[in-house]
Amino acid sequence: MSNDLASVVLAADLGGTNIRMAAVDRNGIILHRTEKLTPRSTDDSAITRSLADMHSELSSELGYAPLGIGIAAASIIDPVNQILTSSPNIPELNGSHLLRKLSELIDSPVHLENDATAAAIGESWIGASKDVDSSICITLGTGIGGGIIIDGNVLRGIDGTAGEVGHVVVDHNGHSCGCGNFGCIEQYASATAVVRMAREEFPNFPASPLAKLERLEAKDIYDAAIGGDECAIKVFKTMSSYLGDAVTGLVNTFNPEMIVIAGGLARGWDMFGDDLREHIDRKAFRRPAERVRILPAVLGSDAGVLGAAKAVFDLAAGS
Amino acid sequence: MSNDLASVVLAADLGGTNIRMAAVDRNGIILHRTEKLTPRSTDDSAITRSLADMHSELSSELGYAPLGIGIAAASIIDPVNQILTSSPNIPELNGSHLLRKLSELIDSPVHLENDATAAAIGESWIGASKDVDSSICITLGTGIGGGIIIDGNVLRGIDGTAGEVGHVVVDHNGHSCGCGNFGCIEQYASATAVVRMAREEFPNFPASPLAKLERLEAKDIYDAAIGGDECAIKVFKTMSSYLGDAVTGLVNTFNPEMIVIAGGLARGWDMFGDDLREHIDRKAFRRPAERVRILPAVLGSDAGVLGAAKAVFDLAAGS
Repeated sequence: MSNDLASVVLAADLGGTNIRMAAVDRNGIILHRTEKLTPRSTDDSAITRSLADMHSELSSELGYAPLGIGIAAASIIDPVNQILTSSPNIPELNGSHLLRKLSELIDSPVHLENDATAAAIGESWIGASKDVDSSICITLGTGIGGGIIIDGNVLRGIDGTAGEVGHVVVDHNGHSCGCGNFGCIEQYASATAVVRMAREEFPNFPASPLAKLERLEAKDIYDAAIGGDECAIKVFKTMSSYLGDAVTGLVNTFNPEMIVIAGGLARGWDMFGDDLREHIDRKAFRRPAERVRILPAVLGSDAGVLGAAKAVFDLAAGS
Repeated sequence: MSNDLASVVLAADLGGTNIRMAAVDRNGIILHRTEKLTPRSTDDSAITRSLADMHSELSSELGYAPLGIGIAAASIIDPVNQILTSSPNIPELNGSHLLRKLSELIDSPVHLENDATAAAIGESWIGASKDVDSSICITLGTGIGGGIIIDGNVLRGIDGTAGEVGHVVVDHNGHSCGCGNFGCIEQYASATAVVRMAREEFPNFPASPLAKLERLEAKDIYDAAIGGDECAIKVFKTMSSYLGDAVTGLVNTFNPEMIVIAGGLARGWDMFGDDLREHIDRKAFRRPAERVRILPAVLGSDAGVLGAAKAVFDLAAGS
């Protein structure tokens, strides 16, 4: 239990709705927290200001300077120039030099991390995959992201953009995707996709109470499925079948020890986890299928914050 | 140019038709070669005997003992028990303890390597990808195999079965695959698939001279495509579009420096290479798409032998 000067970092999860920030120690214990609505604006100045204010607030609570601050953001990050190159849910961050601007406002070293990569790091640190060296964390949220850990290290690729497992194609003539492609798994197993697929099923299930909801969310479909609604059950069957295809490809390609399913939709695990497991057992190569454990994430909405914190600890240790 | 005692290995490519073996030096120069038809039998004894005979023959030609022998085989290899677990084109090797049996007949250390992994190692050593640290080699032959190099090391996975990129799903409701799954890329971009897809197109192109061939091979379709046959051109368009989906997924997932296309069907590169490149440029994430070079392999049918040789040199250096 180390809250001496060099052993606490700040870490933030910068999402489209909220900014959540925490002071985290070397054991992954969250010592202090703060949260704000993500301020919307035409550029990144309001968000930058909020992050700096939250940094001040938590630094004051700590009473000393943190080792650094890690920020998990829902964006592709150009690691060379530390620019947020594509942030579909927070468009004012597209092209943002967030790191440079934040560094002008605060004293601590700043590190940016893709939010799904951060979740993978967090789960690998003190979460579902903490006991294995190779794992793939798939984040099922508004979109689908991922983070790949090989021999304890994040697979970053030559430009740092690796891990975008939401954009493997599972249906050659499939649904158009925001990335410009067609048939990406994001179109069949994200929270957004589950809602779309439910709407597509309504003509087949006119009696489903879901069809009467004005504002339909993935959680409504999950609740209906738990309650036995056939439309909702069908949607989760479809979702798990497509997700099974994507995971089969990852299992055959990586032969990992574990697949971790994270993100908001992972809360629907009991409606798709068994089907996903069965799909892998039937369709992936025998040996890697027998090996791979498939588990829901355990850190919930703290995964990004904890992973960003771990990344800062690792960078500090390496420097 | 080192042919002193410890600097030459033997390496074999054990295929369904031929066994090719060579003596290879540390620079990848092939000093001697020999080749036999793969003897067919009910078990692995004839193949084991042939390999031992060829080993003797090349050792005699060398005049001294090689450092070891590497064997690239078209099989999934259980790296713990060194058993060939699944060898669809040489069924007498299914379950073979080839390494143990060979070790009883010859003095040199024996190393087994999956043939597509060996091709990736070979291309990465002195072939198309020799100047990059991260690459994925996709072997388009009777089936589709692959080998993944990250930071100069082969991605083997926890059981050594990683790299089976022929079995990523690109069509959720697609063609049944020998692996037990449906819609694997092997069903759309292997030599076997190209022949099947041509036959499927014949009703649409009754005038195609291909429809009259009794024994149709991928090379016939390539030749026809080069000659302007619309049926054959359509087949290669379809093939490159599906292959583009699979490669897009790999580019988004790995952010590699290079994709190398190897195997017999790579000889048809000028009928699909440009379309494949264009597919990636349009559909993969911008940054990794701009980064990745997509090239045909350069080692041809020597890739497996050279990769198996390099694997033996690396093992000897590490031991």
